[in-house]
Amino acid sequence: MPIRPTAAIAALFLGFQALAADAPPKTPAAVVAQAPASAWQAIAPDALLVMTVESGRRIVIQLAPRFAPAHVANIRALAKAGWWDGKSVYRVQDNYVAQWGDPTEKLPLPAGIAADIKADYAQPLAALGQSVVPLPYPDAYAPRTGFADGWPVAMDEASIWLPHCYGMVGVARNLSPDAGTGAELYAVIGQAPRQLDRNIALIGRVIEGMGLLASLPRGSGEMGFYASGEKPLPIMSARLASDLPEAERPYYQVMDVGSQSFADYLRLRANRKDDFYDRPAGGVDLCNAPVPVRARP
Amino acid sequence: MPIRPTAAIAALFLGFQALAADAPPKTPAAVVAQAPASAWQAIAPDALLVMTVESGRRIVIQLAPRFAPAHVANIRALAKAGWWDGKSVYRVQDNYVAQWGDPTEKLPLPAGIAADIKADYAQPLAALGQSVVPLPYPDAYAPRTGFADGWPVAMDEASIWLPHCYGMVGVARNLSPDAGTGAELYAVIGQAPRQLDRNIALIGRVIEGMGLLASLPRGSGEMGFYASGEKPLPIMSARLASDLPEAERPYYQVMDVGSQSFADYLRLRANRKDDFYDRPAGGVDLCNAPVPVRARP
Repeated sequence: MPIRPTAAIAALFLGFQALAADAPPKTPAAVVAQAPASAWQAIAPDALLVMTVESGRRIVIQLAPRFAPAHVANIRALAKAGWWDGKSVYRVQDNYVAQWGDPTEKLPLPAGIAADIKADYAQPLAALGQSVVPLPYPDAYAPRTGFADGWPVAMDEASIWLPHCYGMVGVARNLSPDAGTGAELYAVIGQAPRQLDRNIALIGRVIEGMGLLASLPRGSGEMGFYASGEKPLPIMSARLASDLPEAERPYYQVMDVGSQSFADYLRLRANRKDDFYDRPAGGVDLCNAPVPVRARP
Repeated sequence: MPIRPTAAIAALFLGFQALAADAPPKTPAAVVAQAPASAWQAIAPDALLVMTVESGRRIVIQLAPRFAPAHVANIRALAKAGWWDGKSVYRVQDNYVAQWGDPTEKLPLPAGIAADIKADYAQPLAALGQSVVPLPYPDAYAPRTGFADGWPVAMDEASIWLPHCYGMVGVARNLSPDAGTGAELYAVIGQAPRQLDRNIALIGRVIEGMGLLASLPRGSGEMGFYASGEKPLPIMSARLASDLPEAERPYYQVMDVGSQSFADYLRLRANRKDDFYDRPAGGVDLCNAPVPVRARP
């Protein structure tokens, strides 16, 4: 029996998009689909970490050098040295994280990896605060939130930092004051664990392959580590896109958070009112309005 | 190579629990582990929907009859009639939902299933508001939030409703004003899609087997429906625990949200400060403080 949505079921969650070409888009997805080329910004090839796993499947991570300069410098060096090649995703804890690297923590790091670096937990607000598009809804974790430089951000009077939203990638570490090197990374696969904000360095987000990471079998060991007999996901290679042959490079674009398209997207994310929704929420959580990213058309 | 956490890696996220038996617990997990028997309340067997899927794996859903009486009545009747037996989980959309039932929507429902029932989108505040334990942190979706009757809740001046947190189970429906019957259900598998609150009836939460549902392969069809060649997860049976033979019944308990243990749990969820955390958040999101549930010891 083919499993295909009927017209009725297909409407279950999406709502219908406007049918008339000149009608304003009524859903966030329609805004993204109709955004002009000027609303998109290219992601630099040296800000894309391309991880190839078993069966040739690909996970692409966009790095955030302005928010975590020291750790991103390490991660670029680790990629150039082939550090993750032959390693694995060895921990998957439901509603929390999928984590990869070397679970033994015994393998020597490549030369030049700073092991005692300044923690990239937050940046001075002055450095990135000028261009923040505010999100005018309350947040349980930070005095202010918004979007800057293509990223969701949280802020207080002095600092700005990345939040632990679904798909964000962070640096696993040992007990404080250790800040980790970047050799062990994790991606958030559940409800945003925002209590980790400013306690761990976030270095980017998964922009391709998130469904693969999030659907890995959960580990039965403590904290989701794979137990004996459970199979970690092998990592074949991880390289910066800028170090790949031209034919293998992915190209991605992120929506300009200062664009009219992003303003429309946010407004509709907070106020769903179409054929499916009866009651607009009148607000949206910082982690429930992911900045749109697309493959370069 | 056995994949086991080293002592250092094991500390990555959990933080250490208090070692001295008489020291107050320092982590939410320690509070739950040390909660006295009086802090736990039994879940009635007719409020547990036990779904057995391929390979005998089990998914247990706690129903919320006080929040969705009409839909829960339907779901109990559907279970008694064996409606889900031989059906499947046919849609898995990353960071959104896993959905099950009959994707064709063509199979006739059992006799006695109300098809045009009152929407259980919210209840009068007076019905459940007396016992609410408030969560004193701001929320982007509702004027007030808290916990009542073992459940997370959102409220305004007049109404109280369940929020779309990770693991919550809702009733798929067609376009408004259809409210669904309960024959098609979904579980939230990503960041809380709170925009669905009060637009869809929530009928309970997954309390066992969530890792199984959330790790199903994502469907490549539109909205995560499995496309041709992708295999839906077969459902062997779904019954109320009260209709199972005694030997097969699961027994679960939920933490009393009015207990001191729950107060301690919430306080620590909002203020992580132990050997791992440097900076307590000072707040916690409604969906990031799941009410503890455990198998009856």
